Amino acid sequence: MVKQERAIATRQQIIKAAAERFDETGYERASLAEIVDLSRVTKGALYFHFKSKDDLAAVVIEEQHAISMTAVGRIRQTEAPALEQLVMLCYEMGREIVEDPIVRAGIRLTIEMSADVGPPQPYVDWIDGVDSVFRSAIEEGDVLDTVDPAELARYFVSAFTGVQLVSNVLTQRDDLEARLDQMLTFILSAIVTPRRRHKIDRYRHARWDPTSG
Amino acid sequence: MVKQERAIATRQQIIKAAAERFDETGYERASLAEIVDLSRVTKGALYFHFKSKDDLAAVVIEEQHAISMTAVGRIRQTEAPALEQLVMLCYEMGREIVEDPIVRAGIRLTIEMSADVGPPQPYVDWIDGVDSVFRSAIEEGDVLDTVDPAELARYFVSAFTGVQLVSNVLTQRDDLEARLDQMLTFILSAIVTPRRRHKIDRYRHARWDPTSG
Repeated sequence: MVKQERAIATRQQIIKAAAERFDETGYERASLAEIVDLSRVTKGALYFHFKSKDDLAAVVIEEQHAISMTAVGRIRQTEAPALEQLVMLCYEMGREIVEDPIVRAGIRLTIEMSADVGPPQPYVDWIDGVDSVFRSAIEEGDVLDTVDPAELARYFVSAFTGVQLVSNVLTQRDDLEARLDQMLTFILSAIVTPRRRHKIDRYRHARWDPTSG
Repeated sequence: MVKQERAIATRQQIIKAAAERFDETGYERASLAEIVDLSRVTKGALYFHFKSKDDLAAVVIEEQHAISMTAVGRIRQTEAPALEQLVMLCYEMGREIVEDPIVRAGIRLTIEMSADVGPPQPYVDWIDGVDSVFRSAIEEGDVLDTVDPAELARYFVSAFTGVQLVSNVLTQRDDLEARLDQMLTFILSAIVTPRRRHKIDRYRHARWDPTSG
C-alpha cells in the first residue's frame, strides 16, 4: 500500500516536471533527460511509468483535459443560470491556463499539434460541454431559440482558443481577463433574448470559486 | 540581368519548397536537406540565399504576411461598404489558407510559435488593418458607435485565428467557409446598428475576386 502510494507520487512528480518542460520549451525541444533531472527521479523510474516522450505528452494533455472537464462538471452542478455558468467556465478556463502548470503545458502541446491536425478529443468534449450549457440557456429563456446551440458552442470554443492564443502572443496572457470580458460581451449581445438583455451585465460578472462546494 | 532574374527564380523556388515542407511537417521536423532536394537546387545555392532554417522560416512568414496584407490593401481600395470589405477580407484569408501553400505554411509556423510567445507583428498588422475597416464602418453608420473599433478588431482577429485552427483540427479545414459564415453572423448581430440590420444578409454574402482590378 505504501509502495503503491509512493509509485503514484513518483508518477505525479514526473508528470509535473514534464509539464514544466513542455510549457517552457514545447514538445520538440523538451528532452527526457531534462525531465528526469527536473523530477528528481531515476531514468529507470521514468521508463517504468512512461514509454516515451510522446506517451508523457499524451498524459499531460489527458490530465489537463481532466482538470478542465472536472471544472465543467462542477460548474454545471451549481444552481446558477446556464448563462452565468458559461461565464464562470470561461474565466475558470482562463484562470487555469494562467495558474496551473499542467493546464498551461496541455494547452501549449494542444496548440502546437493543432498547427498540424492535432488531437480532436479535447475540442470535441469541450464543445459538447458548452453545447449543453447553451441548450439549458435556451430553455431558461436567456438565449434566442433561433440560435443553433451546436454551432454556437463550436464558435464559442473557437473564439476562446483564438483569444487566449493571441493574448499569449501579444501580452503573455497579461490581458487575458480583459479580452475574455470583451469576447463575452460581443457574444452575449448577439444571442441574449431582448427581455433578458438587462441581465447581460450581471451575467458577465459571474465568477466561480474553485474552492467551493 | 538574366543572371539576376535566375537568382530571383531560384530564391522563389527554395521558398516554395520550404513552404511545402514546413506546411507538411512543421518547423522542427523540416530539414534543410529535404528542402534542397525538393527545390532541385544545390545546397550551395540554398546557403547563398538563406543563412539557416530559421532564416527560411522567417522569410516564409514574411511572404505569407505580405500576401495577406496585399489583399487587405486591395480590398480597402474597392468601393464596397467597409462591412462588406470585412466579409471579403475574412473569406479571402480563408481562401488563401486553404489554397496557397505559402500562406498555409506561414500560418502553421505562426501557430506553432504562438504556442510559445511567437512573433507579434503579423497579429498587430492584421489587427490594425481590421481596426481601420471597423472605423470606416462606424463612420458609414453600419456599426454601432458605442463599439470600440480597436477592441473589436482584436476580438475579430482572435476569433478568426481560433475558428481556422479548430476547423483544421476537426475537419482539416473542410468546413472553414461554413464556420466563417457562422462567426460573421454572430459578430455582425452584435455590432450592426438597428437601422442597418436588414443589410446583414447582403453583407454576409460579399465576396472579393482576387483576379479583379
